[in-house]
Amino acid sequence: MRTVIKGATIIPMTTEDACFVGDVVIVDDKIASIGTSVATMDGDTVIDAREMIAMPSLVNAHTHLSMTYFRNFRDSVSDLHDWLSEIWKLEDKLVPEDMYVASMLGLVEMVASGTTCFADMYFFPEGTIQAVLDVGMKANIGLTLFGGIESSKERVAQLLPSLRTVRDESKGAVRFDIAPHAVYTCTEETLRYAVEVATKEGCGIHIHANETKREVSDSIATFGSTPIAHLDSMGCDGVKCYYAHCVHPGDGDIERLERNPVSVVHNPSSNCKLGSGIAPIASYLEHHIPVALGTDGASSNNSLDMFQEIRLAAMLASASTGDAGKVTPFDVLRMATCEGAAALGRTDECGTLEVGKDADLILLNTKKPHLTPLNNIYSALVYSAKSSDVDTVFCKGRTLMEHREILFIDEDQLRFQFNESWNKIQQRTGGTPS
Amino acid sequence: MRTVIKGATIIPMTTEDACFVGDVVIVDDKIASIGTSVATMDGDTVIDAREMIAMPSLVNAHTHLSMTYFRNFRDSVSDLHDWLSEIWKLEDKLVPEDMYVASMLGLVEMVASGTTCFADMYFFPEGTIQAVLDVGMKANIGLTLFGGIESSKERVAQLLPSLRTVRDESKGAVRFDIAPHAVYTCTEETLRYAVEVATKEGCGIHIHANETKREVSDSIATFGSTPIAHLDSMGCDGVKCYYAHCVHPGDGDIERLERNPVSVVHNPSSNCKLGSGIAPIASYLEHHIPVALGTDGASSNNSLDMFQEIRLAAMLASASTGDAGKVTPFDVLRMATCEGAAALGRTDECGTLEVGKDADLILLNTKKPHLTPLNNIYSALVYSAKSSDVDTVFCKGRTLMEHREILFIDEDQLRFQFNESWNKIQQRTGGTPS
Repeated sequence: MRTVIKGATIIPMTTEDACFVGDVVIVDDKIASIGTSVATMDGDTVIDAREMIAMPSLVNAHTHLSMTYFRNFRDSVSDLHDWLSEIWKLEDKLVPEDMYVASMLGLVEMVASGTTCFADMYFFPEGTIQAVLDVGMKANIGLTLFGGIESSKERVAQLLPSLRTVRDESKGAVRFDIAPHAVYTCTEETLRYAVEVATKEGCGIHIHANETKREVSDSIATFGSTPIAHLDSMGCDGVKCYYAHCVHPGDGDIERLERNPVSVVHNPSSNCKLGSGIAPIASYLEHHIPVALGTDGASSNNSLDMFQEIRLAAMLASASTGDAGKVTPFDVLRMATCEGAAALGRTDECGTLEVGKDADLILLNTKKPHLTPLNNIYSALVYSAKSSDVDTVFCKGRTLMEHREILFIDEDQLRFQFNESWNKIQQRTGGTPS
Repeated sequence: MRTVIKGATIIPMTTEDACFVGDVVIVDDKIASIGTSVATMDGDTVIDAREMIAMPSLVNAHTHLSMTYFRNFRDSVSDLHDWLSEIWKLEDKLVPEDMYVASMLGLVEMVASGTTCFADMYFFPEGTIQAVLDVGMKANIGLTLFGGIESSKERVAQLLPSLRTVRDESKGAVRFDIAPHAVYTCTEETLRYAVEVATKEGCGIHIHANETKREVSDSIATFGSTPIAHLDSMGCDGVKCYYAHCVHPGDGDIERLERNPVSVVHNPSSNCKLGSGIAPIASYLEHHIPVALGTDGASSNNSLDMFQEIRLAAMLASASTGDAGKVTPFDVLRMATCEGAAALGRTDECGTLEVGKDADLILLNTKKPHLTPLNNIYSALVYSAKSSDVDTVFCKGRTLMEHREILFIDEDQLRFQFNESWNKIQQRTGGTPS
């Protein structure tokens, strides 16, 4: 199977000056060639991309996919902790069967906004995994741990065998990381155990860290150290970690992040919306700390749109530093592509457009008033582009969306099934939208 | 001409609990009735709006419409003043004939994102006015003043007669306000003269104020007072004003804004992007200061999308106060609708859906994954909705966009003409995109 993308403005995301007009040839699941007029017009599919931008599809490095049910639900809260107590009441009533349609709805939203790879952290991974496999996307599924060592060991015993099988059978498209929720919800024993399992399995650790001021001060009061320092002392400095949020680094935390193999996952919408604050991304980049980007769950965002995160990340960096030039558009696009791939251990396969990598890429339609004129293309992608400009989406060479039509599912039917499921959950919980 | 919108979820924006499912009947240019099942199915046009939200179309209370040319152009600057010096070099080379296509492109972008009324401030208003009249939108055109009294008087003498004629002939659809650029670009005499003309003409004053820390400190150094205080002493406390930005209120400025008939126009994207900062909107609302919303020009945003501004305004309010509940989604939607109308002196005609007002409204398509489930509808509109969800747009009862198709111009041809014009400007200025 050979697909030729002709005459696109290509943004490989390898270096800032690598942008050019040319062709991409996809053979089966890989990028077979890329360059100026490399392609003859023969291919099973030839796409005239003369007014399109071709770039790597986006990597959402921190989300809770199945929380689509709680989008715009119980929004009138004052902060993260207030919100979590509302949400946990509902989550207690969820059952594994609720997860498939919730995940599938999230995947449709992700593909429609240009994302083909993500890191998830939630209960009941089975429904999410099945949905990802059915669509043909990529995910790092969190083996989520919560609470004490006994339940954590049970959970690992219960989930690890099937996670290994899925990873192997999907050839790594769906893999797993160990995901202890946070230092305020996991005991020290659980955190040490998470490191032990991650080391043994050769996978990463995905955790929330330093999200709110209260989390940091509580951690200092309880453990005598910030969450990031506490994680260090649990052995997290020895494995590949990605820490979601990092809004409030404490004393020495930036040096710890710099020293260790950690990616920060910036979640600007969620941090704003829950009043957590603005993460000091400019400082992280100055210290050469890898920064990826995520939407967090649809319940604290309230969408899964990485183009919104890209724009907001750029806006917040300028507003919070008072310097419009400190974090560049290219920096932010790296966060959403190659740095996301790096956080998820997928640098060799996606995040840039290069020969031999998986054909994970998107085409954006620039025939839009808000993209006229383009002028600086990186600025255009960060400040003017919208998810609705994403025209066509490939993952491993497979077309998931074409001219904005989702190819893998009937959207109307899915929304119907989703609404039925959400009604049942509300009946079960006695809850009504507020 | 009678249009019936059946079965929509109607957000009148009068009070927060006024949301209901029902019908809107448009007769000619007015809302003739609105309520639960008020409409029979007879009408020249009947719209089945059962999965649509009907709400007032948006009011963009501060923009520079023709700056579409400079979208994503010379973006690598450190702040507003650095950026202005880059832009002014180019603007010196513009001629009136450049303005029509630039304005028309901006209008297409506005309509496509649900805006039908805006306040403009720029040179050469003729092209902008012609474009607004051709489309059938509404605008408060700034009679822009810059510099000393002689040139200001000349400009007023030159423009006022035609602005009066347009206002009368368009029955107020296109009216004018006096728009001295800022205290740092207009002499005291010019500012006093602006007040004099506005008083005589019964129009408002549209000006930039307290946009950056430097503007405030320069003003204190030069005049011994902040820009807002300086404007007070010029007589601006006696006429209806709308002050764009107000990012950095100085001592006593909040009390001044509270006391005077001033609307603040919040421009969150521009303030972020240029590193100006985050305006203290929560404080303004606490002091009952009317706050409207604007995109600023496409060159410092870099689009004209009010749904992006709505979302960003909400995000910044929570992030900057650390309180997710202080500025509510309804507060922010008011800024983009009825408070915008109030700033522009149009409360009687638009900004809410009420019988007798102009039929300025939009229909949003909720059959989208990112709007499923809706749950809290105000949260959904603020956090999850995108401009691409705007399906149909009415201004004074006329359909400007239907199922996302712009009805008043051929978009491809417009983009072609715009690009030709932009190429000519670049040849004239010797500039190339950077």
